[in-house]
Amino acid sequence: MTTTAKGYAAQSPETPLAPFSFERRAPGKTDVAIDIAFCGVCHSDLHTAKGEWEGTLYPCVPGHEIVGRVTAVGDDVTKFKVGDIAGVGCMVDSCGQCPSCTDGEEQYCETTGFVGTYNGPDPVLGGHTFGGYSDHIVVDEGFVLKVSHPEADLAAVAPLLCAGITTYSPLKHWKVGPGQKVGIVGLGGLGHMGVKIANAMGAEVYVFSTSPNKREDAKRLGAKDLIVSKDADAMAEHANSFDFILNTVAAPHNLDPFLELLKRDGTMTLVGVPAEPHPSPSVGNLIFRRRQLAGSLIGGIAETQEMLDFCNEHGLVSDIEMIKMDEIEPAYDRMVKSDVKYRFVIDMASTKTA
Amino acid sequence: MTTTAKGYAAQSPETPLAPFSFERRAPGKTDVAIDIAFCGVCHSDLHTAKGEWEGTLYPCVPGHEIVGRVTAVGDDVTKFKVGDIAGVGCMVDSCGQCPSCTDGEEQYCETTGFVGTYNGPDPVLGGHTFGGYSDHIVVDEGFVLKVSHPEADLAAVAPLLCAGITTYSPLKHWKVGPGQKVGIVGLGGLGHMGVKIANAMGAEVYVFSTSPNKREDAKRLGAKDLIVSKDADAMAEHANSFDFILNTVAAPHNLDPFLELLKRDGTMTLVGVPAEPHPSPSVGNLIFRRRQLAGSLIGGIAETQEMLDFCNEHGLVSDIEMIKMDEIEPAYDRMVKSDVKYRFVIDMASTKTA
Repeated sequence: MTTTAKGYAAQSPETPLAPFSFERRAPGKTDVAIDIAFCGVCHSDLHTAKGEWEGTLYPCVPGHEIVGRVTAVGDDVTKFKVGDIAGVGCMVDSCGQCPSCTDGEEQYCETTGFVGTYNGPDPVLGGHTFGGYSDHIVVDEGFVLKVSHPEADLAAVAPLLCAGITTYSPLKHWKVGPGQKVGIVGLGGLGHMGVKIANAMGAEVYVFSTSPNKREDAKRLGAKDLIVSKDADAMAEHANSFDFILNTVAAPHNLDPFLELLKRDGTMTLVGVPAEPHPSPSVGNLIFRRRQLAGSLIGGIAETQEMLDFCNEHGLVSDIEMIKMDEIEPAYDRMVKSDVKYRFVIDMASTKTA
Repeated sequence: MTTTAKGYAAQSPETPLAPFSFERRAPGKTDVAIDIAFCGVCHSDLHTAKGEWEGTLYPCVPGHEIVGRVTAVGDDVTKFKVGDIAGVGCMVDSCGQCPSCTDGEEQYCETTGFVGTYNGPDPVLGGHTFGGYSDHIVVDEGFVLKVSHPEADLAAVAPLLCAGITTYSPLKHWKVGPGQKVGIVGLGGLGHMGVKIANAMGAEVYVFSTSPNKREDAKRLGAKDLIVSKDADAMAEHANSFDFILNTVAAPHNLDPFLELLKRDGTMTLVGVPAEPHPSPSVGNLIFRRRQLAGSLIGGIAETQEMLDFCNEHGLVSDIEMIKMDEIEPAYDRMVKSDVKYRFVIDMASTKTA
């Protein structure tokens, strides 16, 4: 017995998101049904809905930064009960068998790839998955997170499910901690979480931005300072001094000015895929200090739980602007102009009053 | 009191190497004087002598794969005595104070940079350093290596001082060992040592080459097989399966077909600086399996000693073709055509009979 969900969907790359009803499966034995309270708005939502990446399946219901309340659980569910606050991020399933899945790194699932919360192959109903721009969702408990933050913070917790884990995972993997100097390139949805988390991990954090007017905000978020990345003199002052740089900028840009700031054995990790390639990085910059250029994708489910608990412990949430569901298109327009501090979150109550 | 050395030098980018006499310092308190028996011929020698890299100082006496016998030691030398067999590699000095030097990673010296065995600033006599294409050399014992190989192998030990350590260091740094699948891109002077060393470290080794006719030689050197890198089907069979790839090819080439063969968390390390940039590597290839692209430069002095001892223990030397000093120009011509298996070594006795 399916249930009818009310959401917002794009019907084609050209059509604005609009009300759309669709079916959710009845909770199976290991499923958790969640009444969605808040859904963060990620750039991926926009790229997918507008068909800017290949392979969008329409109708497209985006949304993978989901927080809500559990309304039903299957017979075999052990981690959740009705009434719990739960989160869902970018994934709702994976093969569970491959080395990455068994290592708890489901985001790197090596057989089927992970099943995206939207635009993935629906493993139960067939067709494709529909995301969090909707009133409820049904997800296997293996891909549902416990949220322990205070109730008043729940809207601002939603972006942790993608922006939080995408920055936490590489900061953790490359062992960021006290005594280290860490750079965050770009101060957007991802970057502002990177600053907060790296700071909470004990590192000395610097923001790289083309916008000097973000300096005070960078400091408020926990950075020691902002370095204007187009100011060659300001950059040169920090040559060979960074242990780790997390680069959140997807727009094609020259990587070398950042690589040059890494110490010997330092790593710069990219978390954004550019539409066009970055200029080819200098091999000399890598060789002469044994530097590394790496990439990182979201984070595993166990690590996402760890991140949520870490953020709760350190009082970290996202800086958000709340919108109603029918304000999504103007919000997308503002996102394209980077006019948001730092994440839009949809109040799903706005879909339930009609 | 200096001594007059007889060597071979290029007087300009256009002039062939020819006999050249110059002064070596008298051994200071911590210096070791070495009668050079053999000197390997590295591509860097050719690039520097012919002015293909910026900054060649003429007259240029190349050579940084040096093996010979100790003829004198300063009063404070403790590691060497007259009659010992000793080696000198790419470096003859460094600041000794910076974090890299104190970590034993002198090749990454962060203040002055290391002093090259040739074409570096001579720290004692002034002017620039002259390398191993000469009958003797005087070097601080801190940059002299002990050679324990059998006497009959000494010519073939010489290339270990650059080609050996340049491959050993990254294989060691990225923890290559038993149970791992390791690729070596390019089967030249560096690559053939990479195969031998990775094999001796216990890894399963594959050679990537554009030349299928190198297969038998690759296997003889210790590889399990050769993969023809321009054969997309052959490459696809190994997708996502390599723990580590050491890329020794300096010519600009597409890095993505190799990055795609790395497992999650795998690293490809470059040891050659291309004259023109490689095509920009795909960021997606890095992100979707958290792969790393890195660089590595030679190795530290302590690690070079470790490498020499490791090679002696495992019976490893370079495959060489011996030449006389006055055959250097035809040897360079053959190197440009990759027509050498796998390293030319100059028999310095050929300079001493005149």
